[in-house]
Amino acid sequence: MNTLPDIYRDYLECLNRQAWNELQFFVAEEVCYNDQEIGLTGYLSMLKQNYQDIPDLYFEAELVVSDSSYLACRLMFNCTPVGTFMGLPVNGRKIRFSENVFYEFRNHKISRVWSVIDKATIEQQLY
Amino acid sequence: MNTLPDIYRDYLECLNRQAWNELQFFVAEEVCYNDQEIGLTGYLSMLKQNYQDIPDLYFEAELVVSDSSYLACRLMFNCTPVGTFMGLPVNGRKIRFSENVFYEFRNHKISRVWSVIDKATIEQQLY
Repeated sequence: MNTLPDIYRDYLECLNRQAWNELQFFVAEEVCYNDQEIGLTGYLSMLKQNYQDIPDLYFEAELVVSDSSYLACRLMFNCTPVGTFMGLPVNGRKIRFSENVFYEFRNHKISRVWSVIDKATIEQQLY
Repeated sequence: MNTLPDIYRDYLECLNRQAWNELQFFVAEEVCYNDQEIGLTGYLSMLKQNYQDIPDLYFEAELVVSDSSYLACRLMFNCTPVGTFMGLPVNGRKIRFSENVFYEFRNHKISRVWSVIDKATIEQQLY
C-alpha cells in the first residue's frame, strides 16, 4: 500500500501533466477547500482556472510532512501570472512564492484542504 | 522522551504565557525564520513585537502534523491588532485568520521556521 507521500507525489505529477481525467484518483468527490465543499468538479474548475491565470504553473514540493491521515506541504512556485493574481497586478512578471498547505486524506484520497498562499511575499516583489 | 507534538504544545503554552525566559528551551540559538537567521534574540524580539501589535494574541493549534524531525501546524487566531498589521489598517477591529507554519527541530529545539499568514482572509474582513 502506498503511503501518503507516495500518493501525494503522484498527485502533484498529475497536476503538472494537467492529466485532469486522473484527478478523480487523488481527490474525493466531496472534497472541501478552505472549509467550503467545492466537490471534485469545483476542484477541477479551480485548477483549470489556475492554469489559465498562470500558464507556466508548476507544482514543486519543497517540504512534506505527514502522518497516517494528514499531509502538510510547503509548495514553491516560480511562475508568471498573465494578469491579476490574488488581486495583485502581476501582469506577466515572473514571481516566486510559497504555499503552505494541509491535506486530510480519506480512503487514500484528498478530502479536505487548508491552503495559505504567501501574498505578502508576492507584494514585496511588485512594489 | 517527548515527541515533537508534546514539545510543540509546551512551546505554544510558553508563548501564551509570554514566559520569555523559557523560550530558550524550545528555540535554538541559531534559529532561522523564513530563511533568515534571526537567532534566538531576534526571535524573541519578533514575538514581543507581535504582542505589542496584538495585545490579545493567543496561539491555538487547529491541526498538527509531524514526523521525527518536522512539525507542521495550522494556527488559528482570533485577535485585535491595535494598529496596522501586515500593512493593513486593522486599527482595533477583531479579526480571524490562520497561519500555516512548518518547523524543523534539531536536538528537540525549533531550528527553522517557514510561516505563511493568511493575509488575503484578513483583507476580506476589512474591505
